[in-house]
Amino acid sequence: MKPLEFWYEFGSTYSYPAAMRIESLAESAGRTVTWRVFLLGPIFAEQGWDDSPFNLYPAKGRYMWRDLERVCDGQGIGFRRPSAFPRNGLQAARVACRFAEAAWLPGFVRAVYRANFEDDRDIATLETVSDCLSQAGVEPGPVLTESTSPDSKALLRAQTAEAARLGIFGAPSFRAGTELFWGNDRLEDAIGWSSSR
Amino acid sequence: MKPLEFWYEFGSTYSYPAAMRIESLAESAGRTVTWRVFLLGPIFAEQGWDDSPFNLYPAKGRYMWRDLERVCDGQGIGFRRPSAFPRNGLQAARVACRFAEAAWLPGFVRAVYRANFEDDRDIATLETVSDCLSQAGVEPGPVLTESTSPDSKALLRAQTAEAARLGIFGAPSFRAGTELFWGNDRLEDAIGWSSSR
Repeated sequence: MKPLEFWYEFGSTYSYPAAMRIESLAESAGRTVTWRVFLLGPIFAEQGWDDSPFNLYPAKGRYMWRDLERVCDGQGIGFRRPSAFPRNGLQAARVACRFAEAAWLPGFVRAVYRANFEDDRDIATLETVSDCLSQAGVEPGPVLTESTSPDSKALLRAQTAEAARLGIFGAPSFRAGTELFWGNDRLEDAIGWSSSR
Repeated sequence: MKPLEFWYEFGSTYSYPAAMRIESLAESAGRTVTWRVFLLGPIFAEQGWDDSPFNLYPAKGRYMWRDLERVCDGQGIGFRRPSAFPRNGLQAARVACRFAEAAWLPGFVRAVYRANFEDDRDIATLETVSDCLSQAGVEPGPVLTESTSPDSKALLRAQTAEAARLGIFGAPSFRAGTELFWGNDRLEDAIGWSSSR
């Protein structure tokens, strides 16, 4: 059996349905998930983009919003198109990177995605990130302080560089051993691959 | 029940597995397919691309070739990475556009995709297109002559403009009624949508 890594970014639209279902799907297959947050900004910048491709290519963006609505509907999760896109997930990502191993991490990640894509809240603010930590059952203060330390900032930069090194170019991505899968649609394949010998 | 349209381009990688399975899948669901070929070139040009995004964005391209290999393997169809990409499907597209209603059309389309993605043949040549017509059981000469008439050329231009008008930005795409689906991964959803009232 191979490790199963979930590479996600808080601003990424299709990372939302993936984040909401990965834990239960993996559990059904007897697999555990390694949650690896990263930032798409530097990765997009290397491709010459200063914005989400869904904004840069309007036809693609129009399609994505409708498709995401269908996907969320099919998955039975709430969806409201965010009034700003993409939202800045830097602060939430620093928390998720520094505390990747915490038992409360998956609950926090899901709370941030719901804030962004179900409740149309600005996830860039400390207030929203605090609320999401509270929802995950953890005291926000010490976590926020620790997540903005120079070490924590460096950790997220390193993880983003690692994503690029692994050939990751979008989110969500999954790794099963050395095999890369891109997109919410490939989650089942990634879990299947991670379960094979 | 809604009409089910298959929008494909002969150079498009993921159109290959879609073309190989759409007819049997649709038949199982009691649906008939309208085959609508178009050219990605003018559509990509509008997005500022003078080449396939899989060439323009190397990380995305590397991933796609490996993913396509997995997809074809899972589907049980042959695959060999073409030595040139994307290949020019203009001549084949003129045939497929002019003779979209012919009984031999689906067989011809599949033969062209196999030539490109299984046999690594140059589909731009009259020789390959002729062979594909023969494989589909039709006499190539008159078809090739007719497909290069001014009317046939205009027909393909109009169909490509129609694709852009419908919001199509990549291939394969599917339409079920007025609903758009993009990518081989969405074929089942499109068929499901076309079967709903």
